[in-house]
Amino acid sequence: MKIQGKSYRSIWEDASGRIMVIDQRKLPHRFKTLELNQWQDTAAAISNMTVRGAPLIGVTAAYGLYLAICDASNDNWLLALKKASEALQNTRPTAVNLAWALRQQMLSIHASMSKKEASERLLNNARQLANDDISVCKRIGESGLKLIREIANRKQGGVVNILTHCNAGWLGCIDWGTATAPLYMAHHEGIAIHVWVDETRPRLQGARLTTFELGQENIPYHLITDNAGGLLMQQGKVDICLLGTDRTVRNGDVANKIGTYLKALAAYDNKIPFYIALPSSSIDWEIERGSDIPIEERDANEVKQVEGQGQLGIDRVSISPDNAAVYNPGFDITPARFISGLITEHGICKASEAGLLSLFPDLNKS
Amino acid sequence: MKIQGKSYRSIWEDASGRIMVIDQRKLPHRFKTLELNQWQDTAAAISNMTVRGAPLIGVTAAYGLYLAICDASNDNWLLALKKASEALQNTRPTAVNLAWALRQQMLSIHASMSKKEASERLLNNARQLANDDISVCKRIGESGLKLIREIANRKQGGVVNILTHCNAGWLGCIDWGTATAPLYMAHHEGIAIHVWVDETRPRLQGARLTTFELGQENIPYHLITDNAGGLLMQQGKVDICLLGTDRTVRNGDVANKIGTYLKALAAYDNKIPFYIALPSSSIDWEIERGSDIPIEERDANEVKQVEGQGQLGIDRVSISPDNAAVYNPGFDITPARFISGLITEHGICKASEAGLLSLFPDLNKS
Repeated sequence: MKIQGKSYRSIWEDASGRIMVIDQRKLPHRFKTLELNQWQDTAAAISNMTVRGAPLIGVTAAYGLYLAICDASNDNWLLALKKASEALQNTRPTAVNLAWALRQQMLSIHASMSKKEASERLLNNARQLANDDISVCKRIGESGLKLIREIANRKQGGVVNILTHCNAGWLGCIDWGTATAPLYMAHHEGIAIHVWVDETRPRLQGARLTTFELGQENIPYHLITDNAGGLLMQQGKVDICLLGTDRTVRNGDVANKIGTYLKALAAYDNKIPFYIALPSSSIDWEIERGSDIPIEERDANEVKQVEGQGQLGIDRVSISPDNAAVYNPGFDITPARFISGLITEHGICKASEAGLLSLFPDLNKS
Repeated sequence: MKIQGKSYRSIWEDASGRIMVIDQRKLPHRFKTLELNQWQDTAAAISNMTVRGAPLIGVTAAYGLYLAICDASNDNWLLALKKASEALQNTRPTAVNLAWALRQQMLSIHASMSKKEASERLLNNARQLANDDISVCKRIGESGLKLIREIANRKQGGVVNILTHCNAGWLGCIDWGTATAPLYMAHHEGIAIHVWVDETRPRLQGARLTTFELGQENIPYHLITDNAGGLLMQQGKVDICLLGTDRTVRNGDVANKIGTYLKALAAYDNKIPFYIALPSSSIDWEIERGSDIPIEERDANEVKQVEGQGQLGIDRVSISPDNAAVYNPGFDITPARFISGLITEHGICKASEAGLLSLFPDLNKS
């Protein structure tokens, strides 16, 4: 997608083969790219949130192992890789995508390979991982686009108003994003859309990243507080809700950024379609229902302090009494009955076990 | 209620007769009281948000007219009062309570009075207005206390978990508050309660003021983002929701701080009682249903910038792109069907025209 008129991915190789990323910690206030020169740079980028989002973290780690072998000597490269892989895994121990990407890389090589052979394999895998993610997002976009096109047709050229929460955008993937892919495709096709962007407290990914993404692509949007969406739906100002997810379980319940459930309730009360976009890799077939998903509690300072652009640069202000007690759950569960459908790279299905199995028949086992 | 162990009202006369208020702009980071010495000080305090909340604004303006007559000469005091009244009205032109308090004051005096007589009248009225508000809040508290007591009995001494939004507290009234009055009374009675405090974006009245109020009274609470309440209700961690309102209309629909509707939906979905506390003065008998209430749109900077305690004092940080478009509606409408009951100074009734008329039979006219 575009930034300052130029097409970017969230991670890329530049003309001289350097691995580059966007420093997402400084967005939307400053746009800065960063070279990842050694595997240690990739570990730092993951742990200090220079890069974020499951797919981007996975691809960054995959490139990290390629960088690790480049710096290793010809005879101990496998040991160097094992050490790097372990260190990368420890940057975000609970990130499933990260563990998966590292495992794929390590499984693709073996001791009998030359260092050159192994390093080519690791580079190709990293590229493939990035391209696969882009392809998945594109196919999600094409499915979601149909929904937007239908609404545009029904409104006979009237603007299609879409509400989204958090950032299920291309900055957390490699390109297109998940929930945002249909928006970009609709806009590129000339459909008039307008996006309501939930700011998404506490970490404000909507205010910081989704606004930035949409603005750079010249898609009209309004930033709103997380409190405002219900009123907008009551007033008929939302045609469809399109959100991402961290995890979809077997019965179609969805775990997503805290606050998603409230928007689903409002959409349901006002008969507004509520769709979740997801790569099939985020389906957790092992968990039967949403209430079985453990809820991560996050740091109190995410709530007590707000970060942003101050007079002297990026700064933080405290918004509550210093000794305030805080409870900060990271996501909530939206029951399947409030979800109009799941948009995957294999098409759209009902949010139910039967719906999921209709798209993924090979997984028809209990 | 207490601050630093000492009982306060939000506006009071000190031992030497000075009119004092709390500078609420600096809360919760600094507690500072301020003398209102001339009527111009009261106008400034209202317009710059040193004082806020409908009842407190009304009482402050009423004291303002008393201060205006004190400074006027013996022969032109009525003209001086008229000028002051007009200027005070213009500090917050849409504040119904402010207009009402000023009108009551002006109607209570007439040209044939001596300045001394008129000034005594104005002072007594201001005191009476403050005392009336306290009495209303106290009666709301007594009604709401019954609900909490019932839950405590049912839970056999288990902690009663109450969720609230914004600040319907004593700082915006004179004492007790509306939605908070039952909490203070339950706590004083020894009932174990715990409060979930919505931070209440954009102006963060929950994070700033409700936390401060509860902390100073030693009531256990946790500050949460506005997004979190739905999850807490799903998890059975909320026993009752208690909120205030700006305006209740004839059919029982309620206008309150943006985000209230989302909490009402979540309470309804999880079968949790959802009550609104209100003084009968905020019932608007002229409006038939909530959808007829005009929604005030507020300044974009309330969303784009967050104010708080920075390293160098009270500061602001920008959380979105500088050119971000913002929509910032001030309140939303909660349909009566999601409201378990209205808690008024005359008791609790159903959120319906019949319910309201059962408490206020004299108003049984269409």
